[in-house]
Amino acid sequence: MCHHCVIESVKQRMLSRRDLFKAAPAVAVAAAATATAAPALAAGHTGVMDLTHELHHDFPTYFGVPGITLTAKFTFADNGFNVFDLALNEHTGTHIDAPLHFSADGQSVAQIPVENLIAPLAIVDISERAAGDPDTLLTPDDLKAWIAANGPLPERCCVAMNSGWDAHVNGDKFRGADAEGKQHYPGFHVEAAAMLLEESSAIGIAVDTLSLDHGISSTFATHYAWLPTNRWGLECLANLGDLPAVGATLIVGAPKWRGGSGGPSRVMALV
Amino acid sequence: MCHHCVIESVKQRMLSRRDLFKAAPAVAVAAAATATAAPALAAGHTGVMDLTHELHHDFPTYFGVPGITLTAKFTFADNGFNVFDLALNEHTGTHIDAPLHFSADGQSVAQIPVENLIAPLAIVDISERAAGDPDTLLTPDDLKAWIAANGPLPERCCVAMNSGWDAHVNGDKFRGADAEGKQHYPGFHVEAAAMLLEESSAIGIAVDTLSLDHGISSTFATHYAWLPTNRWGLECLANLGDLPAVGATLIVGAPKWRGGSGGPSRVMALV
Repeated sequence: MCHHCVIESVKQRMLSRRDLFKAAPAVAVAAAATATAAPALAAGHTGVMDLTHELHHDFPTYFGVPGITLTAKFTFADNGFNVFDLALNEHTGTHIDAPLHFSADGQSVAQIPVENLIAPLAIVDISERAAGDPDTLLTPDDLKAWIAANGPLPERCCVAMNSGWDAHVNGDKFRGADAEGKQHYPGFHVEAAAMLLEESSAIGIAVDTLSLDHGISSTFATHYAWLPTNRWGLECLANLGDLPAVGATLIVGAPKWRGGSGGPSRVMALV
Repeated sequence: MCHHCVIESVKQRMLSRRDLFKAAPAVAVAAAATATAAPALAAGHTGVMDLTHELHHDFPTYFGVPGITLTAKFTFADNGFNVFDLALNEHTGTHIDAPLHFSADGQSVAQIPVENLIAPLAIVDISERAAGDPDTLLTPDDLKAWIAANGPLPERCCVAMNSGWDAHVNGDKFRGADAEGKQHYPGFHVEAAAMLLEESSAIGIAVDTLSLDHGISSTFATHYAWLPTNRWGLECLANLGDLPAVGATLIVGAPKWRGGSGGPSRVMALV
Protein backbone atom coordinates (compact mmCIF):
# COMPACT_ATOMS: atom_id res chain seq x y z
CA MET A 1 0.00 0.00 0.00
CA CYS A 2 1.50 3.34 -1.00
CA HIS A 3 1.57 6.32 1.36
CA HIS A 4 -1.43 7.93 -0.31
CA CYS A 5 -3.42 4.73 -0.04
CA VAL A 6 -2.52 4.35 3.64
CA ILE A 7 -3.82 7.84 4.31
CA GLU A 8 -7.00 7.22 2.33
CA SER A 9 -7.51 3.90 4.08
CA VAL A 10 -7.15 5.49 7.47
CA LYS A 11 -9.47 8.32 6.51
CA GLN A 12 -12.20 5.92 5.45
CA ARG A 13 -11.75 3.83 8.55
CA MET A 14 -11.83 6.93 10.70
CA LEU A 15 -15.09 8.07 9.13
CA SER A 16 -16.71 4.68 9.54
CA ARG A 17 -15.61 4.19 13.14
CA ARG A 18 -15.91 7.74 14.34
CA ASP A 19 -18.59 6.81 16.85
CA LEU A 20 -16.71 3.88 18.31
CA PHE A 21 -13.81 5.71 19.83
CA LYS A 22 -15.00 8.87 21.44
CA ALA A 23 -12.09 11.05 22.39
CA ALA A 24 -11.98 12.03 26.02
CA PRO A 25 -12.26 15.80 26.29
CA ALA A 26 -8.94 17.60 26.25
CA VAL A 27 -8.33 19.51 29.42
CA ALA A 28 -6.30 22.68 29.27
CA VAL A 29 -3.52 22.27 31.78
CA ALA A 30 -2.53 25.42 33.59
CA ALA A 31 1.10 25.91 34.51
CA ALA A 32 1.58 23.77 37.59
CA ALA A 33 2.84 25.87 40.45
CA THR A 34 2.74 22.98 42.86
CA ALA A 35 4.35 19.59 42.53
CA THR A 36 2.13 16.69 41.61
CA ALA A 37 2.56 13.20 43.00
CA ALA A 38 4.65 10.70 41.06
CA PRO A 39 4.59 7.61 43.29
CA ALA A 40 6.86 5.63 40.96
CA LEU A 41 9.78 7.69 42.22
CA ALA A 42 9.57 6.32 45.72
CA ALA A 43 11.64 3.33 44.61
CA GLY A 44 14.82 5.32 45.29
CA HIS A 45 16.67 4.80 42.04
CA THR A 46 20.38 5.46 41.77
CA GLY A 47 21.13 5.09 38.07
CA VAL A 48 19.88 6.19 34.68
CA MET A 49 19.81 4.64 31.20
CA ASP A 50 19.22 6.51 27.97
CA LEU A 51 16.42 4.97 25.89
CA THR A 52 16.81 7.56 23.12
CA HIS A 53 18.35 6.96 19.71
CA GLU A 54 20.52 9.72 18.30
CA LEU A 55 18.41 11.56 15.74
CA HIS A 56 19.83 12.55 12.36
CA HIS A 57 18.83 13.29 8.78
CA ASP A 58 18.89 9.65 7.71
CA PHE A 59 17.17 8.20 10.77
CA PRO A 60 14.49 5.80 9.46
CA THR A 61 10.93 7.15 9.36
CA TYR A 62 7.50 5.66 8.85
CA PHE A 63 7.00 7.39 5.51
CA GLY A 64 10.55 6.72 4.37
CA VAL A 65 11.55 10.33 3.86
CA PRO A 66 13.93 12.31 6.08
CA GLY A 67 12.24 13.69 9.20
CA ILE A 68 14.85 16.19 10.35
CA THR A 69 17.20 18.59 8.63
CA LEU A 70 19.58 20.93 10.46
CA THR A 71 20.76 24.10 8.74
CA ALA A 72 23.42 26.31 10.27
CA LYS A 73 22.04 29.77 11.03
CA PHE A 74 25.11 30.99 12.88
CA THR A 75 28.49 29.28 13.03
CA PHE A 76 31.31 29.53 15.53
CA ALA A 77 33.79 30.17 12.74
CA ASP A 78 31.84 33.03 11.23
CA ASN A 79 29.79 34.39 14.10
CA GLY A 80 31.40 33.20 17.32
CA PHE A 81 28.55 30.84 18.25
CA ASN A 82 26.61 27.95 16.74
CA VAL A 83 22.85 27.94 16.15
CA PHE A 84 20.90 25.62 13.86
CA ASP A 85 17.49 25.98 12.30
CA LEU A 86 15.55 22.73 12.06
CA ALA A 87 12.99 21.40 9.66
CA LEU A 88 11.34 18.68 11.70
CA ASN A 89 8.50 16.24 11.33
CA GLU A 90 7.03 15.73 14.81
CA HIS A 91 6.98 11.95 14.51
CA THR A 92 10.69 11.41 13.97
CA GLY A 93 13.24 9.48 15.98
CA THR A 94 12.54 8.34 19.52
CA HIS A 95 9.31 10.26 19.97
CA ILE A 96 5.97 10.52 21.71
CA ASP A 97 2.56 10.13 20.10
CA ALA A 98 0.26 12.51 21.95
CA PRO A 99 -3.45 11.62 22.16
CA LEU A 100 -4.09 14.33 19.54
CA HIS A 101 -2.09 12.32 16.99
CA PHE A 102 -5.06 10.02 16.39
CA SER A 103 -8.01 12.00 17.70
CA ALA A 104 -9.88 15.19 16.92
CA ASP A 105 -9.58 16.71 20.36
CA GLY A 106 -7.35 14.61 22.58
CA GLN A 107 -4.52 16.10 24.58
CA SER A 108 -1.85 17.84 22.54
CA VAL A 109 1.75 17.11 23.50
CA ALA A 110 1.73 20.30 25.59
CA GLN A 111 -1.42 19.24 27.43
CA ILE A 112 -0.16 15.91 28.74
CA PRO A 113 0.08 16.42 32.52
CA VAL A 114 3.69 16.30 33.67
CA GLU A 115 2.89 13.59 36.21
CA ASN A 116 1.89 11.38 33.27
CA LEU A 117 5.43 11.67 31.90
CA ILE A 118 6.81 9.56 34.77
CA ALA A 119 5.70 5.97 34.93
CA PRO A 120 6.79 2.54 36.20
CA LEU A 121 8.08 0.58 33.24
CA ALA A 122 6.85 -2.94 32.45
CA ILE A 123 8.81 -4.52 29.60
CA VAL A 124 7.35 -7.39 27.60
CA ASP A 125 10.06 -9.26 25.71
CA ILE A 126 8.91 -10.74 22.39
CA SER A 127 12.35 -10.52 20.80
CA GLU A 128 12.81 -14.25 20.31
CA ARG A 129 9.52 -14.53 18.37
CA ALA A 130 10.20 -11.31 16.47
CA ALA A 131 13.54 -12.62 15.28
CA GLY A 132 11.68 -15.29 13.33
CA ASP A 133 8.61 -13.26 12.37
CA PRO A 134 8.91 -9.52 11.82
CA ASP A 135 5.13 -9.20 11.51
CA THR A 136 4.49 -10.61 14.98
CA LEU A 137 2.35 -8.79 17.53
CA LEU A 138 2.40 -8.35 21.28
CA THR A 139 -0.83 -10.09 22.29
CA PRO A 140 -3.02 -10.46 25.39
CA ASP A 141 -1.31 -13.84 25.92
CA ASP A 142 2.04 -12.04 26.17
CA LEU A 143 0.57 -9.71 28.79
CA LYS A 144 -0.86 -12.66 30.72
CA ALA A 145 2.52 -14.43 30.62
CA TRP A 146 4.23 -11.25 31.87
CA ILE A 147 1.75 -10.98 34.76
CA ALA A 148 2.18 -14.66 35.63
CA ALA A 149 5.95 -14.17 35.83
CA ASN A 150 6.14 -10.71 37.39
CA GLY A 151 2.87 -10.07 39.23
CA PRO A 152 0.26 -7.43 38.49
CA LEU A 153 1.14 -4.54 36.21
CA PRO A 154 2.22 -1.53 38.30
CA GLU A 155 -0.30 1.26 38.75
CA ARG A 156 -0.21 3.92 36.03
CA CYS A 157 2.60 2.12 34.23
CA CYS A 158 3.95 2.19 30.71
CA VAL A 159 3.96 -1.21 29.01
CA ALA A 160 6.84 -1.45 26.56
CA MET A 161 7.37 -3.99 23.79
CA ASN A 162 10.96 -5.18 23.48
CA SER A 163 11.18 -6.81 20.07
CA GLY A 164 14.93 -6.33 19.76
CA TRP A 165 14.29 -4.01 16.82
CA ASP A 166 16.54 -1.23 18.14
CA ALA A 167 19.49 -3.33 16.98
CA HIS A 168 18.36 -2.80 13.38
CA VAL A 169 18.12 0.98 13.54
CA ASN A 170 21.01 1.56 11.16
CA GLY A 171 19.85 -0.89 8.51
CA ASP A 172 17.01 -1.47 6.08
CA LYS A 173 15.47 -4.07 8.39
CA PHE A 174 14.26 -1.32 10.73
CA ARG A 175 11.56 -0.31 8.21
CA GLY A 176 11.58 -3.73 6.63
CA ALA A 177 10.01 -2.46 3.40
CA ASP A 178 9.31 -5.24 0.87
CA ALA A 179 9.10 -4.96 -2.91
CA GLU A 180 5.57 -3.55 -2.65
CA GLY A 181 6.58 -0.99 -0.06
CA LYS A 182 4.83 -2.76 2.81
CA GLN A 183 6.72 -2.45 6.07
CA HIS A 184 7.56 -5.35 8.34
CA TYR A 185 8.26 -4.93 12.05
CA PRO A 186 6.43 -5.88 15.25
CA GLY A 187 3.85 -3.86 17.15
CA PHE A 188 1.00 -4.06 19.67
CA HIS A 189 -2.08 -6.09 18.81
CA VAL A 190 -5.21 -3.99 19.23
CA GLU A 191 -6.54 -6.64 21.62
CA ALA A 192 -3.51 -6.13 23.87
CA ALA A 193 -4.26 -2.42 23.91
CA ALA A 194 -7.91 -3.20 24.70
CA MET A 195 -6.87 -5.52 27.54
CA LEU A 196 -4.69 -2.79 29.05
CA LEU A 197 -7.58 -0.31 28.78
CA GLU A 198 -9.96 -2.68 30.48
CA GLU A 199 -7.80 -4.45 33.03
CA SER A 200 -5.00 -2.05 33.96
CA SER A 201 -4.36 1.60 34.80
CA ALA A 202 -1.55 1.87 32.24
CA ILE A 203 -1.06 5.42 30.95
CA GLY A 204 1.31 4.65 28.07
CA ILE A 205 2.52 1.99 25.69
CA ALA A 206 5.91 1.95 24.02
CA VAL A 207 7.63 0.13 21.17
CA ASP A 208 11.17 -0.16 19.85
CA THR A 209 9.86 -0.01 16.27
CA LEU A 210 8.50 2.74 14.01
CA SER A 211 4.85 2.30 14.98
CA LEU A 212 2.59 1.18 17.82
CA ASP A 213 0.87 -0.97 15.16
CA HIS A 214 2.99 -3.52 13.38
CA GLY A 215 4.46 -2.41 10.07
CA ILE A 216 2.03 -4.19 7.77
CA SER A 217 -1.01 -2.50 9.38
CA SER A 218 -3.00 -0.24 7.10
CA THR A 219 -5.69 0.52 9.68
CA PHE A 220 -3.71 1.77 12.69
CA ALA A 221 -6.10 -0.16 14.91
CA THR A 222 -3.92 0.14 18.01
CA HIS A 223 -3.33 3.87 17.51
CA TYR A 224 -7.11 4.37 17.25
CA ALA A 225 -7.88 2.21 20.27
CA TRP A 226 -5.26 3.72 22.57
CA LEU A 227 -4.53 7.37 21.84
CA PRO A 228 -8.08 8.81 21.85
CA THR A 229 -8.40 7.71 25.50
CA ASN A 230 -5.83 10.39 26.42
CA ARG A 231 -3.08 7.88 26.86
CA TRP A 232 0.22 8.29 25.02
CA GLY A 233 2.54 6.12 22.98
CA LEU A 234 6.30 6.03 22.48
CA GLU A 235 8.00 4.81 19.31
CA CYS A 236 11.61 3.96 18.43
CA LEU A 237 12.87 3.32 21.97
CA ALA A 238 16.41 2.04 22.42
CA ASN A 239 18.07 -0.24 24.97
CA LEU A 240 14.93 -1.89 26.40
CA GLY A 241 16.75 -5.22 26.32
CA ASP A 242 19.17 -3.97 28.95
CA LEU A 243 16.47 -3.25 31.53
CA PRO A 244 14.61 -5.57 33.91
CA ALA A 245 11.04 -6.66 33.12
CA VAL A 246 9.87 -4.58 36.07
CA GLY A 247 11.48 -2.09 38.45
CA ALA A 248 12.67 0.76 36.25
CA THR A 249 10.92 4.12 36.12
CA LEU A 250 10.39 5.80 32.76
CA ILE A 251 10.94 9.54 32.32
CA VAL A 252 9.52 10.98 29.10
CA GLY A 253 11.16 14.28 28.19
CA ALA A 254 8.42 15.18 25.72
CA PRO A 255 8.47 18.57 24.01
CA LYS A 256 5.84 21.11 25.01
CA TRP A 257 4.93 22.92 21.81
CA ARG A 258 1.35 24.19 21.79
CA GLY A 259 -1.08 22.11 19.78
CA GLY A 260 1.49 19.51 18.77
CA SER A 261 0.59 15.88 18.10
CA GLY A 262 3.90 14.57 19.43
CA GLY A 263 7.60 15.09 19.03
CA PRO A 264 11.15 13.84 19.52
CA SER A 265 11.57 13.11 23.21
CA ARG A 266 14.47 12.42 25.53
CA VAL A 267 13.40 9.18 27.13
CA MET A 268 15.31 7.82 30.11
CA ALA A 269 14.88 5.00 32.58
CA LEU A 270 15.75 5.39 36.24
CA VAL A 271 17.09 2.11 37.60
CA MET B 1 23.13 47.30 19.53
CA CYS B 2 21.39 45.72 16.55
CA HIS B 3 21.48 41.98 15.90
CA HIS B 4 24.17 42.32 13.26
CA CYS B 5 26.33 44.36 15.62
CA VAL B 6 25.89 41.83 18.42
CA ILE B 7 27.06 39.08 16.11
CA GLU B 8 30.03 41.13 14.90
CA SER B 9 30.92 42.07 18.47
CA VAL B 10 30.86 38.45 19.54
CA LYS B 11 32.91 37.41 16.55
CA GLN B 12 35.61 39.96 17.32
CA ARG B 13 35.61 39.02 20.97
CA MET B 14 35.79 35.37 20.07
CA LEU B 15 38.77 35.95 17.80
CA SER B 16 40.60 37.99 20.42
CA ARG B 17 39.94 35.55 23.25
CA ARG B 18 40.23 32.32 21.34
CA ASP B 19 43.24 31.24 23.34
CA LEU B 20 41.72 31.97 26.72
CA PHE B 21 38.93 29.44 26.72
CA LYS B 22 40.12 26.21 25.24
CA ALA B 23 37.23 23.90 24.59
CA ALA B 24 37.55 20.52 26.19
CA PRO B 25 37.67 17.85 23.47
CA ALA B 26 34.28 16.50 22.49
CA VAL B 27 33.97 12.83 23.19
CA ALA B 28 31.73 10.73 21.00
CA VAL B 29 29.32 8.99 23.32
CA ALA B 30 28.36 5.49 22.32
CA ALA B 31 24.85 4.31 23.04
CA ALA B 32 24.86 3.42 26.70
CA ALA B 33 23.80 -0.16 27.20
CA THR B 34 24.37 -0.03 30.93
CA ALA B 35 22.92 2.37 33.44
CA THR B 36 25.17 5.09 34.74
CA ALA B 37 25.10 6.36 38.28
CA ALA B 38 22.93 9.35 39.13
CA PRO B 39 23.42 9.76 42.88
CA ALA B 40 21.01 12.69 43.11
CA LEU B 41 18.15 10.23 42.76
CA ALA B 42 18.84 8.55 46.06
CA ALA B 43 16.81 11.25 47.80
CA GLY B 44 13.64 9.25 47.14
CA HIS B 45 11.44 11.91 45.60
CA THR B 46 7.69 11.46 45.39
CA GLY B 47 6.53 14.43 43.29
CA VAL B 48 7.31 16.29 40.11
CA MET B 49 7.03 19.90 38.98
CA ASP B 50 7.13 21.10 35.38
CA LEU B 51 9.74 23.82 34.83
CA THR B 52 8.89 24.13 31.13
CA HIS B 53 6.98 26.98 29.51
CA GLU B 54 4.49 26.08 26.80
CA LEU B 55 6.19 26.87 23.49
CA HIS B 56 4.32 28.66 20.70
CA HIS B 57 4.85 30.87 17.68
CA ASP B 58 4.85 34.12 19.69
CA PHE B 59 7.01 32.87 22.57
CA PRO B 60 9.63 35.60 23.17
CA THR B 61 13.07 34.96 21.69
CA TYR B 62 16.49 36.52 22.05
CA PHE B 63 16.50 37.89 18.51
CA GLY B 64 12.88 38.99 18.68
CA VAL B 65 11.63 36.91 15.78
CA PRO B 66 9.44 33.81 16.04
CA GLY B 67 11.41 30.66 16.88
CA ILE B 68 8.82 28.00 16.07
CA THR B 69 6.15 27.54 13.44
CA LEU B 70 3.90 24.49 13.19
CA THR B 71 2.35 23.60 9.85
CA ALA B 72 -0.23 20.85 9.52
CA LYS B 73 1.07 18.06 7.28
CA PHE B 74 -1.84 15.69 7.96
CA THR B 75 -5.07 16.55 9.74
CA PHE B 76 -7.58 14.38 11.52
CA ALA B 77 -10.41 15.89 9.52
CA ASP B 78 -8.81 15.22 6.15
CA ASN B 79 -6.51 12.28 6.79
CA GLY B 80 -7.65 10.58 9.99
CA PHE B 81 -4.59 11.63 12.03
CA ASN B 82 -2.69 14.78 12.94
CA VAL B 83 0.97 15.42 12.12
CA PHE B 84 2.74 18.77 12.09
CA ASP B 85 5.92 19.89 10.40
CA LEU B 86 7.98 22.32 12.42
CA ALA B 87 10.31 25.14 11.52
CA LEU B 88 12.34 25.52 14.70
CA ASN B 89 15.24 27.58 15.93
CA GLU B 90 17.14 25.40 18.42
CA HIS B 91 17.36 28.14 21.04
CA THR B 92 13.64 28.71 21.51
CA GLY B 93 11.46 28.38 24.59
CA THR B 94 12.64 26.53 27.67
CA HIS B 95 15.79 25.09 26.16
CA ILE B 96 19.30 23.80 26.71
CA ASP B 97 22.51 25.43 25.54
CA ALA B 98 24.89 22.60 24.70
CA PRO B 99 28.63 23.24 25.06
CA LEU B 100 28.80 23.42 21.25
CA HIS B 101 26.62 26.55 21.30
CA PHE B 102 29.63 28.69 22.26
CA SER B 103 32.59 26.56 21.29
CA ALA B 104 34.20 25.11 18.20
CA ASP B 105 34.24 21.52 19.35
CA GLY B 106 32.40 21.15 22.65
CA GLN B 107 29.74 18.51 23.20
CA SER B 108 26.75 18.71 20.87
CA VAL B 109 23.35 18.30 22.48
CA ALA B 110 23.45 14.62 21.46
CA GLN B 111 26.85 14.13 23.09
CA ILE B 112 25.94 15.31 26.59
CA PRO B 113 26.12 12.14 28.71
CA VAL B 114 22.69 11.17 30.00
CA GLU B 115 23.92 11.12 33.59
CA ASN B 116 24.69 14.84 33.17
CA LEU B 117 21.00 15.48 32.49
CA ILE B 118 20.09 14.68 36.10
CA ALA B 119 21.41 17.02 38.76
CA PRO B 120 20.66 18.28 42.26
CA LEU B 121 19.14 21.74 41.92
CA ALA B 122 20.44 24.73 43.88
CA ILE B 123 18.24 27.79 43.43
CA VAL B 124 19.60 31.27 44.07
CA ASP B 125 16.79 33.78 44.54
CA ILE B 126 17.59 37.29 43.32
CA SER B 127 13.98 38.13 42.50
CA GLU B 128 13.68 40.97 45.02
CA ARG B 129 16.71 42.78 43.58
CA ALA B 130 15.65 42.01 40.00
CA ALA B 131 12.25 43.59 40.59
CA GLY B 132 14.01 46.92 41.07
CA ASP B 133 16.83 46.44 38.56
CA PRO B 134 16.25 44.33 35.45
CA ASP B 135 19.97 44.56 34.57
CA THR B 136 21.09 42.96 37.82
CA LEU B 137 23.41 39.97 37.89
CA LEU B 138 23.78 36.88 40.03
CA THR B 139 27.21 37.47 41.59
CA PRO B 140 29.77 35.53 43.66
CA ASP B 141 28.32 37.28 46.72
CA ASP B 142 24.93 35.72 45.94
CA LEU B 143 26.58 32.31 45.76
CA LYS B 144 28.40 32.93 49.07
CA ALA B 145 25.13 33.98 50.71
CA TRP B 146 23.42 30.84 49.38
CA ILE B 147 26.21 28.65 50.78
CA ALA B 148 26.08 30.44 54.15
CA ALA B 149 22.34 29.75 54.35
CA ASN B 150 22.15 26.26 52.83
CA GLY B 151 25.57 24.67 53.18
CA PRO B 152 27.95 23.59 50.41
CA LEU B 153 26.64 23.31 46.88
CA PRO B 154 25.67 19.68 46.13
CA GLU B 155 28.07 17.63 44.05
CA ARG B 156 27.51 17.89 40.29
CA CYS B 157 24.59 20.27 40.79
CA CYS B 158 22.83 22.77 38.58
CA VAL B 159 22.81 26.30 39.99
CA ALA B 160 19.67 28.13 38.89
CA MET B 161 18.93 31.85 39.04
CA ASN B 162 15.40 32.67 40.14
CA SER B 163 14.87 36.29 39.16
CA GLY B 164 11.08 35.99 39.03
CA TRP B 165 11.24 36.66 35.30
CA ASP B 166 9.03 33.71 34.36
CA ALA B 167 6.06 35.79 35.51
CA HIS B 168 6.73 38.20 32.62
CA VAL B 169 6.77 35.57 29.87
CA ASN B 170 3.58 36.79 28.22
CA GLY B 171 4.55 40.46 28.17
CA ASP B 172 7.11 42.82 26.66
CA LYS B 173 9.07 42.90 29.92
CA PHE B 174 10.39 39.40 29.28
CA ARG B 175 12.72 40.74 26.54
CA GLY B 176 12.69 44.21 28.05
CA ALA B 177 13.78 45.85 24.80
CA ASP B 178 14.33 49.60 25.12
CA ALA B 179 14.06 52.26 22.41
CA GLU B 180 17.51 51.32 21.11
CA GLY B 181 16.68 47.63 21.03
CA LYS B 182 18.87 46.77 24.02
CA GLN B 183 17.36 44.01 26.16
CA HIS B 184 16.97 44.24 29.92
CA TYR B 185 16.70 41.15 32.12
CA PRO B 186 18.94 39.51 34.72
CA GLY B 187 21.63 36.89 34.16
CA PHE B 188 24.75 35.29 35.62
CA HIS B 189 27.81 37.46 36.20
CA VAL B 190 30.86 35.93 34.54
CA GLU B 191 32.61 35.99 37.91
CA ALA B 192 29.84 33.80 39.38
CA ALA B 193 30.40 31.34 36.55
CA ALA B 194 34.14 31.48 37.22
CA MET B 195 33.58 30.85 40.93
CA LEU B 196 31.47 27.79 40.15
CA LEU B 197 34.15 26.49 37.80
CA GLU B 198 36.87 26.95 40.40
CA GLU B 199 35.13 26.10 43.64
CA SER B 200 32.33 23.65 42.79
CA SER B 201 31.60 20.57 40.72
CA ALA B 202 28.49 22.14 39.16
CA ILE B 203 27.67 20.71 35.74
CA GLY B 204 25.01 23.22 34.71
CA ILE B 205 23.66 26.71 35.26
CA ALA B 206 20.09 27.80 34.59
CA VAL B 207 18.14 31.03 34.27
CA ASP B 208 14.49 32.01 34.03
CA THR B 209 15.35 34.65 31.41
CA LEU B 210 16.28 34.56 27.73
CA SER B 211 20.04 34.35 28.26
CA LEU B 212 22.68 33.10 30.69
CA ASP B 213 24.18 36.59 30.34
CA HIS B 214 22.00 39.52 31.32
CA GLY B 215 20.09 41.15 28.49
CA ILE B 216 22.33 44.19 28.01
CA SER B 217 25.42 42.03 27.46
CA SER B 218 27.00 42.32 24.05
CA THR B 219 29.95 40.05 24.85
CA PHE B 220 28.27 36.87 26.13
CA ALA B 221 31.02 36.64 28.74
CA THR B 222 29.20 34.01 30.81
CA HIS B 223 28.36 31.85 27.79
CA TYR B 224 32.06 31.93 26.79
CA ALA B 225 33.29 31.17 30.28
CA TRP B 226 30.90 28.31 30.99
CA LEU B 227 29.89 26.38 27.88
CA PRO B 228 33.33 25.60 26.39
CA THR B 229 34.15 23.64 29.57
CA ASN B 230 31.58 21.02 28.48
CA ARG B 231 29.02 22.24 30.98
CA TRP B 232 25.51 23.13 29.85
CA GLY B 233 23.09 25.98 30.40
CA LEU B 234 19.31 26.20 30.59
CA GLU B 235 17.29 29.27 29.61
CA CYS B 236 13.65 30.31 30.11
CA LEU B 237 12.89 28.02 33.05
CA ALA B 238 9.47 28.35 34.72
CA ASN B 239 8.27 27.90 38.32
CA LEU B 240 11.65 28.09 40.09
CA GLY B 241 10.00 30.27 42.74
CA ASP B 242 7.86 27.35 43.82
CA LEU B 243 10.82 25.11 44.65
CA PRO B 244 13.06 24.98 47.71
CA ALA B 245 16.57 26.49 47.59
CA VAL B 246 17.96 22.97 47.85
CA GLY B 247 16.54 19.44 47.77
CA ALA B 248 14.94 19.13 44.33
CA THR B 249 16.47 17.07 41.52
CA LEU B 250 16.51 18.48 38.02
CA ILE B 251 15.71 16.28 35.00
CA VAL B 252 16.65 17.80 31.65
CA GLY B 253 14.72 16.20 28.80
CA ALA B 254 17.11 17.57 26.17
CA PRO B 255 16.65 16.58 22.54
CA LYS B 256 19.26 14.28 20.97
CA TRP B 257 19.67 15.51 17.42
CA ARG B 258 23.14 14.89 16.03
CA GLY B 259 25.44 17.89 15.97
CA GLY B 260 22.90 20.24 17.55
CA SER B 261 23.91 23.21 19.70
CA GLY B 262 20.86 22.89 21.95
CA GLY B 263 17.12 22.67 21.74
CA PRO B 264 13.73 22.94 23.42
CA SER B 265 13.80 20.65 26.44
CA ARG B 266 11.23 19.23 28.81
CA VAL B 267 12.66 20.26 32.16
CA MET B 268 11.20 18.84 35.36
CA ALA B 269 12.08 18.89 39.03
CA LEU B 270 11.63 15.87 41.25
CA VAL B 271 10.64 16.97 44.75
